[in-house]
Amino acid sequence: MLTNVHLVTVDWGHCDPAGVVYFPNYFNYFDSSTNALFLRALGCNKYEMLKRYGIVGIPLVDVGARFIVPSTFGDVVTIESSVAEIRRSSFRMLHRLLRGDTLAVEGTETRVWVGRDPADPDRLKGMPIPADVVAKLKG
Amino acid sequence: MLTNVHLVTVDWGHCDPAGVVYFPNYFNYFDSSTNALFLRALGCNKYEMLKRYGIVGIPLVDVGARFIVPSTFGDVVTIESSVAEIRRSSFRMLHRLLRGDTLAVEGTETRVWVGRDPADPDRLKGMPIPADVVAKLKG
Amino acid sequence: MLTNVHLVTVDWGHCDPAGVVYFPNYFNYFDSSTNALFLRALGCNKYEMLKRYGIVGIPLVDVGARFIVPSTFGDVVTIESSVAEIRRSSFRMLHRLLRGDTLAVEGTETRVWVGRDPADPDRLKGMPIPADVVAKLKG
Amino acid sequence: MLTNVHLVTVDWGHCDPAGVVYFPNYFNYFDSSTNALFLRALGCNKYEMLKRYGIVGIPLVDVGARFIVPSTFGDVVTIESSVAEIRRSSFRMLHRLLRGDTLAVEGTETRVWVGRDPADPDRLKGMPIPADVVAKLKG
Repeated sequence: MLTNVHLVTVDWGHCDPAGVVYFPNYFNYFDSSTNALFLRALGCNKYEMLKRYGIVGIPLVDVGARFIVPSTFGDVVTIESSVAEIRRSSFRMLHRLLRGDTLAVEGTETRVWVGRDPADPDRLKGMPIPADVVAKLKG
Repeated sequence: MLTNVHLVTVDWGHCDPAGVVYFPNYFNYFDSSTNALFLRALGCNKYEMLKRYGIVGIPLVDVGARFIVPSTFGDVVTIESSVAEIRRSSFRMLHRLLRGDTLAVEGTETRVWVGRDPADPDRLKGMPIPADVVAKLKG
Repeated sequence: MLTNVHLVTVDWGHCDPAGVVYFPNYFNYFDSSTNALFLRALGCNKYEMLKRYGIVGIPLVDVGARFIVPSTFGDVVTIESSVAEIRRSSFRMLHRLLRGDTLAVEGTETRVWVGRDPADPDRLKGMPIPADVVAKLKG
Repeated sequence: MLTNVHLVTVDWGHCDPAGVVYFPNYFNYFDSSTNALFLRALGCNKYEMLKRYGIVGIPLVDVGARFIVPSTFGDVVTIESSVAEIRRSSFRMLHRLLRGDTLAVEGTETRVWVGRDPADPDRLKGMPIPADVVAKLKG
């Protein structure tokens, strides 16, 4: 399965009054890291990906994280992201955020390949992940 | 155990190009909801709570969420938060976000009662949760 | 012109390592406050407003703020928002954020009533503000 | 005066339901860009800068922006930031955000060099910008 490495500079505005990353921001980092993996796999950015495949997004149905070591503003952290499992219309991502050589945060995302429901365009609906996307995510 | 109900207005800026809440923002909602429960339990806001107990915060070591139904800007959602378990220096919160009567998101947080390490003030360190706080969280 | 008062609880996650509101979050507060004024003026939330008038949003073309006194987590601040000027397809909002009786932040927004360009739906385009909206904003 | 160029990838989570950058996020970009300029000028990151000079931060007293052209997720934008003026304890930054060759957003920040008030450590107080910092910002 495909793996991608994404660097993030922890900035002042990501940190809380304790001086460390405010935890929801780790999910922003993981989301960016998933997008970076797709950019590498498909050779197009998310805007073009949505147009090309006629989808609305790849929203999450399940997410989890374990916070082991805090990071602070000025740190440059490394996120190793990999596709862990691909099903018909969903897939699972693993993220490992490293501060230097230390595993600092570990996260997992389950995402769905989602379009508009033809019967009701205000509703979102899971769709089969196209075969070429599956092939590229398998690396 | 104590339970608290917290209302959140989903705003334009919380939503993504799919028109629904950008998922990391649910963790902001849950964090506010935990703070609201402490405000009710202790009768003081978080700033005063940190001063009173000499702590730096109640950071997370573990978090998880399941996204069942999306919400959009303009929605007023209800978050039912409860203390699920209290240990020596950590505790677990459960959050249920309801859109009308529908369970839309379910989340769990494990948090630690944290102060500065006397040996190294740059380091954070778990501390025993004071007995009066435990009593008030038990409701 | 219409004026509305909006209360905001400053939360932990809005503050930076200096312990005070991270300044871009004041613009989130002002944006929520503008949305609250429209909710009161039109009797419908932003989602319904976009549907009713066939617009994409009311984006900003110009914004400014003066930060006089900081606020911290736990503070409940008051935002007084008023419509200062209405032109053909744009309008100007004034926001005064008060901490107790003290003026803490002052902001101004120029916004445009925007729809999709019929000639190119990927482009946004200013549209005349409907007469009933103008009348309601005049209060 | 010193000028620095900073690249930002506009991500999905920075954009609103209109599909373009939610405007407060431009101030996050400008803040990161100011931090990047200081990193280059002083050769240390913001965490080390605060320690070295005994300050709490460089908060804003005044900010303004003009939004000319929207950007969307997937765009890589360029921010040219420069020091426009240095006074005793404050300085002014100019930011020009370019989408390709097009000026998309223009912003200005007035910031103060701030420490804790020795008379009341809960209060922040402007302090003279050290001579070596002034020299480095002058480039």
